[in-house]
Amino acid sequence: MARYGCVEAGGTKFICAVADEAGNIEAEVRIPTTTPEETLGQALRFFQTQHGLGDAALRSLGVACFGPVDLQTESPTYGMITATPKAGWRMTPVVRFLQEGLGVPVGFDTDVNGAALAEGVWGAGKGLQDFVYVTIGTGIGGGAVVGGRAVHGAMHPEMGHMRIPHDRERDPFAGICPFHGDCWEGLCSGPALRARFGEAAENWPEDHPGWDLAAEYTALAVQNILCTLSPQRILLGGGVMQQARLFPMLRQKTASLLNGYLSAAATAVDLETVIMPPALGSRAGILGGLVLALRAAGVEV
Amino acid sequence: MARYGCVEAGGTKFICAVADEAGNIEAEVRIPTTTPEETLGQALRFFQTQHGLGDAALRSLGVACFGPVDLQTESPTYGMITATPKAGWRMTPVVRFLQEGLGVPVGFDTDVNGAALAEGVWGAGKGLQDFVYVTIGTGIGGGAVVGGRAVHGAMHPEMGHMRIPHDRERDPFAGICPFHGDCWEGLCSGPALRARFGEAAENWPEDHPGWDLAAEYTALAVQNILCTLSPQRILLGGGVMQQARLFPMLRQKTASLLNGYLSAAATAVDLETVIMPPALGSRAGILGGLVLALRAAGVEV
Repeated sequence: MARYGCVEAGGTKFICAVADEAGNIEAEVRIPTTTPEETLGQALRFFQTQHGLGDAALRSLGVACFGPVDLQTESPTYGMITATPKAGWRMTPVVRFLQEGLGVPVGFDTDVNGAALAEGVWGAGKGLQDFVYVTIGTGIGGGAVVGGRAVHGAMHPEMGHMRIPHDRERDPFAGICPFHGDCWEGLCSGPALRARFGEAAENWPEDHPGWDLAAEYTALAVQNILCTLSPQRILLGGGVMQQARLFPMLRQKTASLLNGYLSAAATAVDLETVIMPPALGSRAGILGGLVLALRAAGVEV
Repeated sequence: MARYGCVEAGGTKFICAVADEAGNIEAEVRIPTTTPEETLGQALRFFQTQHGLGDAALRSLGVACFGPVDLQTESPTYGMITATPKAGWRMTPVVRFLQEGLGVPVGFDTDVNGAALAEGVWGAGKGLQDFVYVTIGTGIGGGAVVGGRAVHGAMHPEMGHMRIPHDRERDPFAGICPFHGDCWEGLCSGPALRARFGEAAENWPEDHPGWDLAAEYTALAVQNILCTLSPQRILLGGGVMQQARLFPMLRQKTASLLNGYLSAAATAVDLETVIMPPALGSRAGILGGLVLALRAAGVEV
């Protein structure tokens, strides 16, 4: 089997791996995200070491990257991390650096788009052409797949920043998004939930009142995603969604909000195949890099 | 030039026309929407009369249809109007009836998707691959174009039914959506605006307080569309949007809501090319039918 380089480029660490087209990983390193020179330099050296001759060559590289990034191939800043608040990383030419250093095609997309594509190839979106992958953790991100391709548009979706109804009587919390206050991410990300209750959601007991709040806001966002993209499925992962109890609550609340509208998603039972957890867990990111590498090499997955 | 049949199938009237691939219309009739038998029967007879021999044959038909409709080509109810509240029209096999009666390929999509595609070919979305068309009138509908194709997904988008923040202190109106009360359509459609102020928005003076409210709700929905689909442009038409003053207000409010987020849309000036009126006016519907007919005949537009 051919060999491909995969990068999950995160704000805390870069995971770099070499894998075959079936997703078997033969080598992997974790590199702390410090400066672009240091982190990208270490990533490049790893792949140079892995890049052999003949069948041992890396056919391509795929990078699922933290953002915001420029995905417009015709843009002069294509392949860069753009307006990130992360110190030192603004306007970092990720694709150019790796492409020049390694001399193979480099596929590039956001981390959530990469994860969405990986779920579509090997995970809970398998066989679907139109679905959405959402991660609720430190922030809230969403990747949309339409006709089997990740939606880019003018930039890329930033689903966490959608506006949803906020009942300030029930929940007077102002929200923590530095841009919007009480957008979905401002109300319902891990840090937003922790800020209200003083304890991370991951440590809440099953009967913690925060779960109902998280399910309520997420149901509102799910309705908006259903109304805007009409996906066949919405996969919800990330730290906050690890509480299995959230899924039946979320389906019940979404059904109640939709109130019979959208015939394909009228009841909580119907929603069992629409609102689901992803299947790849923490591997979604690096396998996202692999899908991008495969497509950059012209392999259709 | 070849000849194509086009239908704008609305809840009040069906417009049927014959056009060439440049959009020149050579014949057109308006048929009241009564019963499916009567209305579709009249439409079919019009096209049978128009369907000549050789170069005078209709190569195909395209129907931009009121909904909800089934757009899944592999579904047993493909090409039907499905769960419509319109008396007598539930489960009407529009495509099958016209295809069997005329014996030419029939293209089929929602009315807003058709209008969106027409704007992409001849109107204000020309040259764009990713944009959204919204109409705010009796209801609120939205069609999304991604990579040049109308988004269908599991069903089709129903953007008017997204949830947006509703400040009940400022605007105690409960909303008129029979399913959701105060979704976007429930708060901001023509009838919702009229219900608050006793007069249709079309007749409001320039300084009517309702404009600010309509701009506010629409800006919230525009932010959600930008965050979910990342379109290059959002075209907003329909009766309510005929007030030209709404556009600068809407851009200002959207810029203020985004608060610098989404670098391509940071200010009201940047938003001048993002938030725009459509260009085809009342012709968008029938030209939507033409795009669907052209694509059904294998003509790429």
